[in-house]
Amino acid sequence: MIVILKQNHDQKQLEELRAWLEEQEISIQVNHGVHSTVLGLIGDTSQVDSDLIEALDIVEAVKRVQEPYKKANRKFHPQNSVVTVGGVPVGGGGFVVMAGPCSVESREQLCEVAQAVKASGAQILRGGAFKPRTSPYAFQGMRESGIDLLLEAKKLTGLPIVTEIMDISHLDSFAQVDCIQVGARNMQNFELLKELGRSKTPVLLKRGLSSTIQEWLMSAEYIMAGGNENVILCERGIRTFETATRNTFDISAVPVLREHSHLPVIMDPSHATGVARYVKPLAVAAAAIGADGLMIEVHNNPAKALCDGPQSLTPEQFDDTMRSVNAVLAARR
Amino acid sequence: MIVILKQNHDQKQLEELRAWLEEQEISIQVNHGVHSTVLGLIGDTSQVDSDLIEALDIVEAVKRVQEPYKKANRKFHPQNSVVTVGGVPVGGGGFVVMAGPCSVESREQLCEVAQAVKASGAQILRGGAFKPRTSPYAFQGMRESGIDLLLEAKKLTGLPIVTEIMDISHLDSFAQVDCIQVGARNMQNFELLKELGRSKTPVLLKRGLSSTIQEWLMSAEYIMAGGNENVILCERGIRTFETATRNTFDISAVPVLREHSHLPVIMDPSHATGVARYVKPLAVAAAAIGADGLMIEVHNNPAKALCDGPQSLTPEQFDDTMRSVNAVLAARR
Amino acid sequence: MIVILKQNHDQKQLEELRAWLEEQEISIQVNHGVHSTVLGLIGDTSQVDSDLIEALDIVEAVKRVQEPYKKANRKFHPQNSVVTVGGVPVGGGGFVVMAGPCSVESREQLCEVAQAVKASGAQILRGGAFKPRTSPYAFQGMRESGIDLLLEAKKLTGLPIVTEIMDISHLDSFAQVDCIQVGARNMQNFELLKELGRSKTPVLLKRGLSSTIQEWLMSAEYIMAGGNENVILCERGIRTFETATRNTFDISAVPVLREHSHLPVIMDPSHATGVARYVKPLAVAAAAIGADGLMIEVHNNPAKALCDGPQSLTPEQFDDTMRSVNAVLAARR
Amino acid sequence: MIVILKQNHDQKQLEELRAWLEEQEISIQVNHGVHSTVLGLIGDTSQVDSDLIEALDIVEAVKRVQEPYKKANRKFHPQNSVVTVGGVPVGGGGFVVMAGPCSVESREQLCEVAQAVKASGAQILRGGAFKPRTSPYAFQGMRESGIDLLLEAKKLTGLPIVTEIMDISHLDSFAQVDCIQVGARNMQNFELLKELGRSKTPVLLKRGLSSTIQEWLMSAEYIMAGGNENVILCERGIRTFETATRNTFDISAVPVLREHSHLPVIMDPSHATGVARYVKPLAVAAAAIGADGLMIEVHNNPAKALCDGPQSLTPEQFDDTMRSVNAVLAARR
Repeated sequence: MIVILKQNHDQKQLEELRAWLEEQEISIQVNHGVHSTVLGLIGDTSQVDSDLIEALDIVEAVKRVQEPYKKANRKFHPQNSVVTVGGVPVGGGGFVVMAGPCSVESREQLCEVAQAVKASGAQILRGGAFKPRTSPYAFQGMRESGIDLLLEAKKLTGLPIVTEIMDISHLDSFAQVDCIQVGARNMQNFELLKELGRSKTPVLLKRGLSSTIQEWLMSAEYIMAGGNENVILCERGIRTFETATRNTFDISAVPVLREHSHLPVIMDPSHATGVARYVKPLAVAAAAIGADGLMIEVHNNPAKALCDGPQSLTPEQFDDTMRSVNAVLAARR
Repeated sequence: MIVILKQNHDQKQLEELRAWLEEQEISIQVNHGVHSTVLGLIGDTSQVDSDLIEALDIVEAVKRVQEPYKKANRKFHPQNSVVTVGGVPVGGGGFVVMAGPCSVESREQLCEVAQAVKASGAQILRGGAFKPRTSPYAFQGMRESGIDLLLEAKKLTGLPIVTEIMDISHLDSFAQVDCIQVGARNMQNFELLKELGRSKTPVLLKRGLSSTIQEWLMSAEYIMAGGNENVILCERGIRTFETATRNTFDISAVPVLREHSHLPVIMDPSHATGVARYVKPLAVAAAAIGADGLMIEVHNNPAKALCDGPQSLTPEQFDDTMRSVNAVLAARR
Repeated sequence: MIVILKQNHDQKQLEELRAWLEEQEISIQVNHGVHSTVLGLIGDTSQVDSDLIEALDIVEAVKRVQEPYKKANRKFHPQNSVVTVGGVPVGGGGFVVMAGPCSVESREQLCEVAQAVKASGAQILRGGAFKPRTSPYAFQGMRESGIDLLLEAKKLTGLPIVTEIMDISHLDSFAQVDCIQVGARNMQNFELLKELGRSKTPVLLKRGLSSTIQEWLMSAEYIMAGGNENVILCERGIRTFETATRNTFDISAVPVLREHSHLPVIMDPSHATGVARYVKPLAVAAAAIGADGLMIEVHNNPAKALCDGPQSLTPEQFDDTMRSVNAVLAARR
Repeated sequence: MIVILKQNHDQKQLEELRAWLEEQEISIQVNHGVHSTVLGLIGDTSQVDSDLIEALDIVEAVKRVQEPYKKANRKFHPQNSVVTVGGVPVGGGGFVVMAGPCSVESREQLCEVAQAVKASGAQILRGGAFKPRTSPYAFQGMRESGIDLLLEAKKLTGLPIVTEIMDISHLDSFAQVDCIQVGARNMQNFELLKELGRSKTPVLLKRGLSSTIQEWLMSAEYIMAGGNENVILCERGIRTFETATRNTFDISAVPVLREHSHLPVIMDPSHATGVARYVKPLAVAAAAIGADGLMIEVHNNPAKALCDGPQSLTPEQFDDTMRSVNAVLAARR
């Protein structure tokens, strides 16, 4: 950590800072520049509160050298992590596709879609039971009974299931769920993250709508710090000024995360664009860039989907997408 | 609602759409343009799912004419709302300042700050007991015991209190709190919003880091649709590419909200900038533009604040800020 | 075009609007809704000034149904355009790589890089002679003599050249340049666009730092409206809140542009990320998604590049990138 | 400047870097941390190319301590600058309002508006002769003859004039213009900035649509480095995801610029919002926060304005705005 002092800073306060840091086993090297004095903090600064230091009267700015996350950090865990979801390994060289309807609507709908996506090569079934909707007047999901249907579809197809949690109080309903999804709007619901950290169930952590990659990794760190290292990251588009797509698919997140973290990275082109006809090209690009997999919305009748219809593929479109994805994956090897 | 059809759309599907809309008591006017056909939907379209329509094969785009919120909408409630917080009216012409420490740290700290801000004219005491922190390793607040201290400070000073809730499961601890704050990161924690809608306690709803004003009003609608119309909106900066301030203080939100909603609007320059020396000028600007009040962080020893220190004012700086704010308020009348 | 009228609008003003539109051979269909009246404008509205209509007292909002561009619009030109740069066709199914140094620095540097990129498969040589630099104290390019060196390198290798123009007054120096680049900062330098519209030289138009895709196509329209239809679009990253990369590479722009325009699309991962080690994965993704080519910075000694060094590849890294790109292109076929 | 080295960096390359820096009279202090080595560069680093250093193999990151601008920097020029525009001092404690039509349309229109805004207290007349329009089919301004009309209006009213330049080749037409405006889209048209640096005519430099405050000051530095220190900064809204206003008015730019620069700061609420009814509240806020003045669009018939009509005030609305602005200015004193 680098601390830049104000010009004409008070010497006594500097001594207090030094003493306070030394209590935390941090030593200081002082560099006197022409226009400013700069302190180099030496030791394990990941636990040092940089906000506190920045608040001091004598300090102009603080710049971190080390990342503020440890368990999610590749520096301390050089090998890629593999998270096993109901027997399916995610990360570590394979490519896993999670597919299914935005919302679970009925047994028929779910089972039909589940069988179709399995036939096309999906390995995990996704489906929303608890649905975060912007409007209180919109369909809020089948909730507990939606999870029951997902478990039925799992029994039928053998596909493990991933579904979103919206509140700690619903956790009991997720007891048999193979992977619990934390949605973009809950990426910084820290109480929920802490609670999931006490479990061992894999967590698929979506990136917040306007979260930096570092904040996203800090949210992963919350879960991991609690003891649950089974975290999968999922990019689903960030908010920008562009309006042609619902969000902007930040595909650069893949190489950036590869460098800074060992966790698996899944890409969700359905939510990133909100437009079904852009899903296939983005899925192919995500496969090419080296993501660990995809999450794709598929519906047997997109026009009647109760939510997010415009971004869902038909089973036929999904099958076509998988063929192109597989062709690119073969070329990558 | 306006529905733009694709060129060469299927007539049978158009008839199905018409029938489905008529079931919902919506009638359709068809305009045949040169390059496209446009449908005008007439009736109460606020409950019509535009996503569903947009998903149809024959539809190119859907454009809303009406806003998707009703209870928060000035069109249906022309007078300004007044929300009473522990006897203090917020909205409706007055100007209310909520001040206090970012985090409650100790009885001494809180009581000293509470008495100081009261002396300078604050009418509501703010203080964080449950703290949302980006890092799991940072101080997470005094939690329940922090609320106890806030209630003590209330008894001492007579100031009603506002403090942030992070999870539904903590709600019992908030039984005597005068106003419950929903933080930016929880603006779209819909389960929490619904739960608060079942109460009558005033809710201070902060704008999400990258939320549009319309989404923010939809979150207010969640609370109001549940039966709790005591909602206060609080702007605290939005995320942009600029780095000189922590966020960008969207001061235009005041006139925009005035036009579209009847709810009171409070401005938080402390979180918007993250820099104590920018708080006074922004507070003065917020008073000048006609906001209903301010939320400001004050600490008796900012350099030792356990969180968000750099953005806290000293009691002396707060007093000076209040003088300037009052001068501008007097000029506005 | 859809015009939404205010409630209680003045009938006389509505008649004036109707008359004014009819002068422009636009007819109006009126839809009376419950809360608002909506006009549908029928005819060729691409020349109608929507700002003017929105300014009227009686108008609440105007929504365009048609895109405001014509020559760049796929609707009026269904086939993909092919722009020929010094004999090399760009667009129409092939894949063209433009590579070379950020700045032309010397004959030795340029020729060495040109021969290396040609050997690895690049078909067009890029190199900056006039350099837009944020700081007035930074190296501003070799200017005219840089173009002379590019022409020498062209003679040596046979590669056509593309280089950036910064001002109309430099146009004479570009007489023998095969493709003139308009940089992101000049995307809305409308006088320059108009001047380039009077020429027949192909123009590579980079997307502005915070331009929407529609604004970008409007800038292409400026050039095309002047008579020069040889426009190539180049995505180079947009500005967002994320700081891990210099910009955010908007890869979705490829399918969006494919749908709305017939112009060729080139992707520039070097400027999009500003980080050499992210260039290869993004180049591969761009090839996979179906772009018409790439623009990549290559330097024989990146550490000594006079500008933008951190984003340049070595010839060896470029060769490795080309191999991966070609593998994906083969799979795409 | 702080240079963070990679773990296991090559010692020989470090020696080369040290030698290269010493040539530039920069000395180095080395801090060996646990996980990284950090160099502190001591001396005048404003001319050191940080990109070049960041490009080195051994370097992980470079962090600037000093700002990269000098002439625009308050550190080197503590007093506020005053720029005199046709006899009217801008900056230094007064408050100057620049008002007039978006576009000059006719002698009658311009003279009527000029007399009206003068009567209400405006001290400088603005009016667009050369108009940057997104669409090539939109009205492009009266150009040279528009400047002639501005000069006539100046003669009539005595108000100095400010008008926008779009290209160096038009400079001759601006010989008698009191203040030359550089629009947001040209903020980084570096050749234009250099040319204006050779003159002594005051320059009103608008902030780019997505420019950071630092980049904006670097563009001011371009003009000042050329010898023209008469630069006025003008904030006109930045691009964000919010759509209720055309741009987001970054009012925090006032205190940030006050801290980092000595140049006068003018606020333009007309372009920032694009909505006439939001102009007054934002103008009042800008006066309250301590800006040096305003730029406001006024039109005698906004509904017929040839461009940007929706954001123009009528003379009556402008007069009302001025009364409120003056009331707040009186309170500020």
